[in-house]
Amino acid sequence: MGKGITSREEDYSQWYNDLVIKADLAEYAAVRGCMVIKPYGYAIWERMQAVLDKKFKDTGHSNAYFPLFIPKSFFSKEASHVEGFATECAVVTHYRLKNDGHGNIIVDEDAKLEEELIVRPTSETIIWNTYRGWIESYRDLPILVNQWANVVRWEMRTRLFLRTTEFLWQEGHTAHATQEEAIEETEKMLHVYGDFVENYLGVPVIRGRKTENERFAGAIDTYCIEALMQDGKALQAGTSHFLGQNFAKAFDVKFTSREGKLEHVWATSWGVSTRLMGALVMAHSDDQGLVLPPMLAPIQVVVVPIFKTAEEKQAIDTFIDALSTELKSKNISVKYDDRDTQRPGFKFAEWELKGVPLRVAIGARDMQNGTVELARRDTQIKETVEQAGLGDRIERLLNEIQENIFKKALDYRDSHITEVNSYDEFKAVLETKAGFISCHWDGTVETEKLVKEETKATIRCIPLDAKEEAGICIFTGKPSTKRVLFAKAY
Amino acid sequence: MGKGITSREEDYSQWYNDLVIKADLAEYAAVRGCMVIKPYGYAIWERMQAVLDKKFKDTGHSNAYFPLFIPKSFFSKEASHVEGFATECAVVTHYRLKNDGHGNIIVDEDAKLEEELIVRPTSETIIWNTYRGWIESYRDLPILVNQWANVVRWEMRTRLFLRTTEFLWQEGHTAHATQEEAIEETEKMLHVYGDFVENYLGVPVIRGRKTENERFAGAIDTYCIEALMQDGKALQAGTSHFLGQNFAKAFDVKFTSREGKLEHVWATSWGVSTRLMGALVMAHSDDQGLVLPPMLAPIQVVVVPIFKTAEEKQAIDTFIDALSTELKSKNISVKYDDRDTQRPGFKFAEWELKGVPLRVAIGARDMQNGTVELARRDTQIKETVEQAGLGDRIERLLNEIQENIFKKALDYRDSHITEVNSYDEFKAVLETKAGFISCHWDGTVETEKLVKEETKATIRCIPLDAKEEAGICIFTGKPSTKRVLFAKAY
Repeated sequence: MGKGITSREEDYSQWYNDLVIKADLAEYAAVRGCMVIKPYGYAIWERMQAVLDKKFKDTGHSNAYFPLFIPKSFFSKEASHVEGFATECAVVTHYRLKNDGHGNIIVDEDAKLEEELIVRPTSETIIWNTYRGWIESYRDLPILVNQWANVVRWEMRTRLFLRTTEFLWQEGHTAHATQEEAIEETEKMLHVYGDFVENYLGVPVIRGRKTENERFAGAIDTYCIEALMQDGKALQAGTSHFLGQNFAKAFDVKFTSREGKLEHVWATSWGVSTRLMGALVMAHSDDQGLVLPPMLAPIQVVVVPIFKTAEEKQAIDTFIDALSTELKSKNISVKYDDRDTQRPGFKFAEWELKGVPLRVAIGARDMQNGTVELARRDTQIKETVEQAGLGDRIERLLNEIQENIFKKALDYRDSHITEVNSYDEFKAVLETKAGFISCHWDGTVETEKLVKEETKATIRCIPLDAKEEAGICIFTGKPSTKRVLFAKAY
Repeated sequence: MGKGITSREEDYSQWYNDLVIKADLAEYAAVRGCMVIKPYGYAIWERMQAVLDKKFKDTGHSNAYFPLFIPKSFFSKEASHVEGFATECAVVTHYRLKNDGHGNIIVDEDAKLEEELIVRPTSETIIWNTYRGWIESYRDLPILVNQWANVVRWEMRTRLFLRTTEFLWQEGHTAHATQEEAIEETEKMLHVYGDFVENYLGVPVIRGRKTENERFAGAIDTYCIEALMQDGKALQAGTSHFLGQNFAKAFDVKFTSREGKLEHVWATSWGVSTRLMGALVMAHSDDQGLVLPPMLAPIQVVVVPIFKTAEEKQAIDTFIDALSTELKSKNISVKYDDRDTQRPGFKFAEWELKGVPLRVAIGARDMQNGTVELARRDTQIKETVEQAGLGDRIERLLNEIQENIFKKALDYRDSHITEVNSYDEFKAVLETKAGFISCHWDGTVETEKLVKEETKATIRCIPLDAKEEAGICIFTGKPSTKRVLFAKAY
């Protein structure tokens, strides 16, 4: 192809990096581990944001904004929370630079903060400190708030979108009068995420709960959606946490109940991030470039005119003008690529690389015959079709593409869930086809850690729909009542 | 009123603080100088964002995202830029905390950064360092990029929305092949801002250019829009900078021109921030609370039912249901406040405080008479009107309210521009009615600084529409060719 993309076969990890960069989604910034999200990549993220934001509002949530900085003391009020985040956070210690008198700009030691500030890695602490002032009575509950923000986790090994020092996300933080209501919220938001990832990203997910070992630092229970990438590795695509009264206790947030009793408030938090961009790329794309689901593609249809004379061009322009108007009225985004600096073949390759779901090519002969050439990005199938009814056909095709992309990923995923009943089988599957491995586990943190040390596989989740089934742990032989899903993961 | 809001007369500054807090727009966070933007305030900001984002896209811009952190060395590459920002920036020096062995969480000195990172106060440096990789030829230009982001400027004196350590904004950063095109862009975006603030916030602005003294650190020319608050002080509501080749030179960003010559790229940057929330509050609100222009009000119409029996309530519900459907089809947001925990009088006061443009009150007698009571927030006028045609009437009234709010602010502003021809007059006006003072100035930084020292007034701008007029500087008596606008400012 001459696009400079490594094939998946050759090196999946390099293929991913090549693709993210060549398709203009993102690049590494000059700051270690940080990324620049380029306009084409950001346009996809904006589409994700718009859909999610509407879903949050439709389920009663409002947006708000809390500070970037968290006082160090807050951060350590919830014991397991500080354990989870202290080793990977950016610390602000000074508030001024100065000229050292020799022309060098240095940190001004006279401007040292009394208390260091942490750049938020997540906002539970600052938000629950704020909620203390908002909540007195059951009448003030529930609080259903979401925040779109940047967060920083100082990662040693970074990969574009998948793991970066700074990333963008949304974090919902809700406060409830009862445990039941908080658990219901936790589960509701998990399903909002699951439906979003399946219906928009076209990526099937398994909804489940994390084991103690993989739980969010400070949560009683962490729910997650787990997706499978084309290399057989799992990717956690979103989490929803039931926090119990942990943060309410740490920040002394109480309310007077309907019965007049003073009680601690119940909490949830839930988030998805620009990591979803990585899932989107890895789940569907191929060696020719991105494959974007129409629901999130910034450009759903690209039109490339093929002409020799100005007259030919003009006839095509007139036709495409009408088509564009029709497509826009159907809320379909279309780009007419009539640049005269590039040849059609170059344009075909470029839009293929960028994953535009549908390409329309139209030349002088097509104009005579009343036809156009349609090329689907997902199946690579080209066909010559009539100009009559083209708008409706395109609309239908985009729906088909969205379905087909999901179906293909679902088939792959379903054929990569393997039930095993022994540790030998477990290791064999990990080394051959990978994917999710469904097996019995004795329920202990120790066993999970030992398996991880030996195989790098972790328990991705205990699926919500796991059946009760008597069995024995593949590692210790101890009794178990449910299968869990192991996998190597991003 | 019992709302606990200080009157403007008594203490304008306290009135503003009371209003922002009592109307649930924002509050101070536990972190010095930072704010929490509460859901009601954030909903207004989201409306501003939506309108501006569309205007940016309609003028050809795309969004992208650049890192929060800027290496210290970048920051000091443009000499005047570092001068402007070094004394007020948050500095990240470490990337880890640890337990000191006695249960205290401390900064881990083994995790000291080789080069300190600055939390962006503005992003010219990191963006122009990135653009170097994006630009080779004139074909890569223009780059028209905008970013929605948080920024940090370590302010010693802070006020909610007007001046906070962290604030939210958008910053456009464009790159051009020619000086002319960059200047055109700078001016275009100034007018986008001006039109937005006048048509949506309902705040009239004066479009002008800053003097050298008030220019952005690193700009060749700073354009601005200046608004007037009800206390006669000016507020800079947005700026658009022509940066020349300053940042391209500092970051070595060159392109091959159409003629095959290697040249430095021309730049602009432009931004508005959550400061606009402060302008919105201060321009229109009164001692009873917020007055929101319908174009930005999260709730445009509130309906309060007045009833004694369940039957009365049900009849009202049915009527309001139909009205809400009609209003929603007209894209008018309506809230039906049928809480049974509060009395109508309490609700009236609450929505008045929150600035809802139009209130509909409806009781059992109204239902018999086929009427409702309408109350405008801006004029405080109440009238009883027929239920027939109510949807259309409300739509018309909201437009009237939007116009009236602007008109009132314009009348105030226009009556607070005073031409003076002597320094005595200048000082007298400043002490009595304040507002903008139009006068001659000799064009020097020294004079501007002396006037500022003596009176606290600064040159807000040289209006774009200033006429050529021979005159003498009110301070030095030196010749001048144009009047400028002085004012005390936020």
